[in-house]
Amino acid sequence: MKPKIFIGMAIKAWDIQIGRADKFFNSLDDDAYLNEIAPGKNRIVYLLGHLIAVNDNMIALFSLGNRSYAELDDAFVKKPDRSGLPMPDVATLRQYWKKSNEQLSSFFAGMTAEQWFGKHTSMTEEDLIKEPTRNKLSVLLNRTSHVAYHLGQLALFRAGVE
Amino acid sequence: MKPKIFIGMAIKAWDIQIGRADKFFNSLDDDAYLNEIAPGKNRIVYLLGHLIAVNDNMIALFSLGNRSYAELDDAFVKKPDRSGLPMPDVATLRQYWKKSNEQLSSFFAGMTAEQWFGKHTSMTEEDLIKEPTRNKLSVLLNRTSHVAYHLGQLALFRAGVE
Repeated sequence: MKPKIFIGMAIKAWDIQIGRADKFFNSLDDDAYLNEIAPGKNRIVYLLGHLIAVNDNMIALFSLGNRSYAELDDAFVKKPDRSGLPMPDVATLRQYWKKSNEQLSSFFAGMTAEQWFGKHTSMTEEDLIKEPTRNKLSVLLNRTSHVAYHLGQLALFRAGVE
Repeated sequence: MKPKIFIGMAIKAWDIQIGRADKFFNSLDDDAYLNEIAPGKNRIVYLLGHLIAVNDNMIALFSLGNRSYAELDDAFVKKPDRSGLPMPDVATLRQYWKKSNEQLSSFFAGMTAEQWFGKHTSMTEEDLIKEPTRNKLSVLLNRTSHVAYHLGQLALFRAGVE
């Protein structure tokens, strides 16, 4: 069994969730992003910015270079929705989402097995020896679940308009 | 890189989502399960039965024997919530959830790398040759995202009571 097959499986699982989220986001007009997913809950625009920021953070965790959208962390990760912090407009966020997915796919495709199975930047070498499953690929698996988690919430809105 | 490490990573990702769902379900009294996750949406009891049934189906897909809770498919998978079909009571479903997770963990721990990377029962040998990433372990990755998807919805209820 070659590591490439497992890496391919993890990337495919990621692509499935991103593809579903992309389909959801593409189905809406810009105005619709200001709706809440359910009464009193996060707005769609917040979840879009949140996913971009959290996904973008893999660039840093995987030592692939500088992040592209680190400026979104304040309004979309560190703070809850409606914090009053400035947010880019919906059209800009939609562009970021598209570009971020393209950038991450390109990075993932170029990573070697040694990179995927190596430690990520918030771990020490000792951590990896103790727990060899805590590597970059495991971060991708967890980020995949994170996309799915919020997609389940977004789907509540979609179900509401159908 | 040994296949055991990949398999361990996928099982760990599963365990993380199941652990979070378990924590959520354990935090509620039986009565609370009749609440909707958001106005007009699925009830918590439906999502509990749905997760048990969908997870249990891995026993069949992985050729591990007879399913334990196939009778839940009608009310919790084939039909939406409030179909009028009979449902076990909440206390019984909570027992099923606990036992199902124990049973699946035990099955997963006993599966060999050959089993994990082999085809599942709804595929042909030719399918696997064409797409080697479509194996049992990929089913586990997708089922992990499925748990996360509904956990995101359940969390809306939890956020509502906190």
